[in-house]
Amino acid sequence: MFNQYESYLFDLDGTVYNGEKPIDSAISFITKLNQKGIPYGFITNNSTKTPEQVADKLRKFGLHVEANQVVTSALATALYVKKNVKEARVFIIGEIGLETAFSSFNKDDMKPDAVIIGLDRHITYEKMSQAARLVREGALFIATNPDRILPSANGLVCGNGAIVAAISYAAQKEPITIGKPNKEIITLALEQLQFQKDKTILVGDNYETDIMTGIHAGMSTLHVKTGVTLDCSNFEKQPTFSISSLDRWQLEEV
Amino acid sequence: MFNQYESYLFDLDGTVYNGEKPIDSAISFITKLNQKGIPYGFITNNSTKTPEQVADKLRKFGLHVEANQVVTSALATALYVKKNVKEARVFIIGEIGLETAFSSFNKDDMKPDAVIIGLDRHITYEKMSQAARLVREGALFIATNPDRILPSANGLVCGNGAIVAAISYAAQKEPITIGKPNKEIITLALEQLQFQKDKTILVGDNYETDIMTGIHAGMSTLHVKTGVTLDCSNFEKQPTFSISSLDRWQLEEV
Repeated sequence: MFNQYESYLFDLDGTVYNGEKPIDSAISFITKLNQKGIPYGFITNNSTKTPEQVADKLRKFGLHVEANQVVTSALATALYVKKNVKEARVFIIGEIGLETAFSSFNKDDMKPDAVIIGLDRHITYEKMSQAARLVREGALFIATNPDRILPSANGLVCGNGAIVAAISYAAQKEPITIGKPNKEIITLALEQLQFQKDKTILVGDNYETDIMTGIHAGMSTLHVKTGVTLDCSNFEKQPTFSISSLDRWQLEEV
Repeated sequence: MFNQYESYLFDLDGTVYNGEKPIDSAISFITKLNQKGIPYGFITNNSTKTPEQVADKLRKFGLHVEANQVVTSALATALYVKKNVKEARVFIIGEIGLETAFSSFNKDDMKPDAVIIGLDRHITYEKMSQAARLVREGALFIATNPDRILPSANGLVCGNGAIVAAISYAAQKEPITIGKPNKEIITLALEQLQFQKDKTILVGDNYETDIMTGIHAGMSTLHVKTGVTLDCSNFEKQPTFSISSLDRWQLEEV
């Protein structure tokens, strides 16, 4: 297969690496993009890491990546709030990735414009209760991502979506969710990276998150069988392309 | 109004007291029941207290109450599990009320038959994750009650239903819920108290929890306007009776 996409947007886990293990076909493909001067970027639902931390991990795999090529759900959420709520005062639950993304915002624990929920592995009952109270009192309710579960050294653990579900149940309100499979993260990433949607292809392994995000955003998608979803054929909406690995993807000279 | 019910089942908060303040009409009514030898009992969705602790609070208001007249959602849940899973090994999230109710059960953190969730104000991310993992691996998923929020000295806080919602979202499974407004708590309470359903009336202030429980269980209900719901007239299914307070309820000689 060959193509003439002008820019590439990659999912990370299952697409570029599996946990701490790089996926060779992806590493050599992205290296080739870099050599040919074809722009690429990365999107991740992980809100706990900063773009710098993510870039650093990718550099350890031998890739050439700057922090501004990485759009985390935390960064996308900060961009979303900046665009939609003028001088927003925020109440945040989250880790370093989210705290960094919102470092320029005013914090307000009592009467925020928006309550932002990202994964916090040190979440407490009191923090969840406070978030629920503030949402009930009228603050915008925004979730970085809806992930149900995550792999960890101790087996599966709760994703951010679980924390959000608790607050949503207590507050009787559904959140605005930025991360995959919602198109918001794509819209904000394309803007941030200055990529054109119809000339960009989204590369991912997980049908329900990555490919659906591209479908929701109305852009081309490339499914790789190196992670979660090994077969897309039974899904109603098909990815634009589905290949075993990025070894199978030829780059036309652009 | 007068009646010939042979036994009375009372909700607590909003019906017998409001927080730390007794509701006089209820106290004098229950005192009269005691004098006339008419049996009465109490049901509560609170799973954090033991029946003894609840009885003790009621005795401080001058009532004659033994611990075995109190059915908490924790006790009802333990009775439910005892009936439905022979020699169940359990994994529990909860406070002293739930721990006491399950003190005779075998605990198993790795391969329990059932995962039991009651309100735990010291809940951690790791405990929620472990519960979700065990439910995903096939353990029965049981919630003491579905409360969204609770009043507290710091304003509204998350009820047990919020914790349950987080685990349910991560595990992609709905729990069996014992507490109000589900009829299970009534069925188990009537059995425990040896009351006959068609000769017992359920007294409560909250339409959506108390009165709906009685409606779900198919028993008589008496709504009192001393707590949450001040007017039932717009609801499709009506309580059997609705009165301003228990001062308005005459006891026929039995």
